[in-house]
Amino acid sequence: MTTTEIPVPPAGPQAPLAPRPTPDRWQEPPYNRWAFANLGELIPTAAIPRRYRPAPAEASNNPGALGCRLPGLAERLEAAYTDAFLVLQDNEVVADYYRAGLPPDQPHLVMSVSKSLCGLVVGALVGEGSIVTDAPVLEYLPELAGTAYAGSVTVQHVLDMVVHVDYNEDYLDPASEVQTHDRSSGWRGRHDGDPASTREFLTTLTGNGQPGTFQYCSANTDVLAWIVERASGLRYTEALSKYLWSKLGAEHDATITVDPEGFGFANGGVSCTARDLARVGQLMLDGGKGPGGSVVSTEWVRSIFAGGDPQAMAGSPFTQVHPGGSYTRQWWCTGSERGIITGIGIHGQYLWVDPTARAVIVQLSTWPEPDSEHFHRQQNQLLLDISHSLTEDTPA
Amino acid sequence: MTTTEIPVPPAGPQAPLAPRPTPDRWQEPPYNRWAFANLGELIPTAAIPRRYRPAPAEASNNPGALGCRLPGLAERLEAAYTDAFLVLQDNEVVADYYRAGLPPDQPHLVMSVSKSLCGLVVGALVGEGSIVTDAPVLEYLPELAGTAYAGSVTVQHVLDMVVHVDYNEDYLDPASEVQTHDRSSGWRGRHDGDPASTREFLTTLTGNGQPGTFQYCSANTDVLAWIVERASGLRYTEALSKYLWSKLGAEHDATITVDPEGFGFANGGVSCTARDLARVGQLMLDGGKGPGGSVVSTEWVRSIFAGGDPQAMAGSPFTQVHPGGSYTRQWWCTGSERGIITGIGIHGQYLWVDPTARAVIVQLSTWPEPDSEHFHRQQNQLLLDISHSLTEDTPA
Repeated sequence: MTTTEIPVPPAGPQAPLAPRPTPDRWQEPPYNRWAFANLGELIPTAAIPRRYRPAPAEASNNPGALGCRLPGLAERLEAAYTDAFLVLQDNEVVADYYRAGLPPDQPHLVMSVSKSLCGLVVGALVGEGSIVTDAPVLEYLPELAGTAYAGSVTVQHVLDMVVHVDYNEDYLDPASEVQTHDRSSGWRGRHDGDPASTREFLTTLTGNGQPGTFQYCSANTDVLAWIVERASGLRYTEALSKYLWSKLGAEHDATITVDPEGFGFANGGVSCTARDLARVGQLMLDGGKGPGGSVVSTEWVRSIFAGGDPQAMAGSPFTQVHPGGSYTRQWWCTGSERGIITGIGIHGQYLWVDPTARAVIVQLSTWPEPDSEHFHRQQNQLLLDISHSLTEDTPA
Repeated sequence: MTTTEIPVPPAGPQAPLAPRPTPDRWQEPPYNRWAFANLGELIPTAAIPRRYRPAPAEASNNPGALGCRLPGLAERLEAAYTDAFLVLQDNEVVADYYRAGLPPDQPHLVMSVSKSLCGLVVGALVGEGSIVTDAPVLEYLPELAGTAYAGSVTVQHVLDMVVHVDYNEDYLDPASEVQTHDRSSGWRGRHDGDPASTREFLTTLTGNGQPGTFQYCSANTDVLAWIVERASGLRYTEALSKYLWSKLGAEHDATITVDPEGFGFANGGVSCTARDLARVGQLMLDGGKGPGGSVVSTEWVRSIFAGGDPQAMAGSPFTQVHPGGSYTRQWWCTGSERGIITGIGIHGQYLWVDPTARAVIVQLSTWPEPDSEHFHRQQNQLLLDISHSLTEDTPA
């Protein structure tokens, strides 16, 4: 066998979208040339740190001046199952907390805050003209003909989650579409007959073809990530590095879970440190510009702070906590006079951006329940109290 | 539900050996507190680099002075499907090569060179008195009663691969034990009836109970890693960081694949950069001392350079290439007058340590075949030619 018979795919972050080895063939040529340099994408993998340090036995709690203004802060964080918590004001860390056992530089799953990151990548591609938000989804993804994303559904509809999809987002219901989605993407054990991949799952989704009403649906974000791949010619994992993560001045690489095709789980699969996630919030306060360059236009950021259509989500659980709340471009908008926007993930992930306080609050938690009203109310009150405390006005 | 009902396991590298969530339960309490900070151990994961750079379009070839002494070196490396290659002499990089598409800081699977790393971790624990090499395996692992590792089989027998195991190491035979081992450890798709984990697989292995003859058997190394866990009270992944990787002055974290129980695949699952792997070779030249502290005793290193029992492996494929060759403490010993030792992995991984040239040569390849005589002979000739070139004597 000579060298020339074996194609040599790139092994770095620009690895090709396809072909990808099956679980039994990654050791064989030609797959092994890519697989030996990317094994964590195929097999669960642990880090062997080059700096060994035992996990901290005590929580690290640095409340700073917040501690005086908000007595009992540490207890409230603990009651909210907080793993990592960080407050940035004027781009300086003014308070942080890490629970016992969690080193501050250990990446933590951010769940659906991943969606807000995806929205920024879409915004970056809109800025360079590769994606047009008014264009029909089918213009980018003809594979979705006959699905909920066909007909008059545009990229903007998907960004704003105003697509009707026959999709039950009940995380605890084994018969729900969100659990089939998880199984198709490697987040749960597979059942017979499940779609073989995230993209295959997306092609099964039906809807009434009438966009306009808010429906929180995780599948939307994976459709956006697929559009990102089509428009950029990059894997989503790579686009996230090129258009966002490399512009933040991040201290650590982030990670994203991948399905059997190597497609990143854009709707919920990103892990990163609290400090790096706060840099995404700072980017929003800085009009879309990071230390490493512009990510999205000032106009894109302004549109997010301006919020989506409150009528589209009237009566939703979010508007019960935040009257006037809305959702646009994969961000939640509280609609309050403070102009707060936030990314939110189940089990208690928040990326809270408060332009009035020029502050970013990150909270990464592991609530015992994915999405209860109790925990959301408790968490929102804590975040609002901190926001008000930062501007030294009366708590709401 | 109150906080106190939920135990809070550490989330960092000291995560407990057990309990570990099943694929369907990692999002639930109490598992989510560990899982949200260690998701790559449960689900395949891609990096999102904080420094975006396209994969190099051209190979990086810096032969240095070797290029004059060994014309055609780059062509020989290319013909050997080399991905990464590096020569260290007197602890300085004097030559390196990275194929097109592979960034030098991308970790690469080292396959059974992982065994030599495990041997050093065992040596470290021997040095601190936690493992006694003459002790029976069963003293550490009563779970292995009734297996090939019972009776008079000692830790030293396992280190030297002189245990009789009913284990076919034919990587290409679907009926072989090495493929069942792979499937039990997450390296191949599972079959019905397969052991659920690496450790469960190890408990199925039988033998004749007569140690003394060399038999290369990957299961031995996983037995050693299990002994490491029992003797240190740490996960193997963690012991590898504490006792070896953190002492090297490594530039990058290494990684190791893990099975459903989180047990590291010690016999073949480590990935790292060529530059960091060369630091392990330098450690051997430096008598077991790294920039971050001593790993193993000078005596342990001397015993490896002295080699094992050549009679134990008479007639093996290795001694056909290296007359006088032997194996001890998870290292191959060429038995030549140069005193060369090496770690070797299938598909062309070499960590070649030449005390005569005060040199370390790392070659990380992706041969199209796992273990052919053709490629091994070609590779050994190349490494010997480089070794001789480094001391400017006549090539063998």
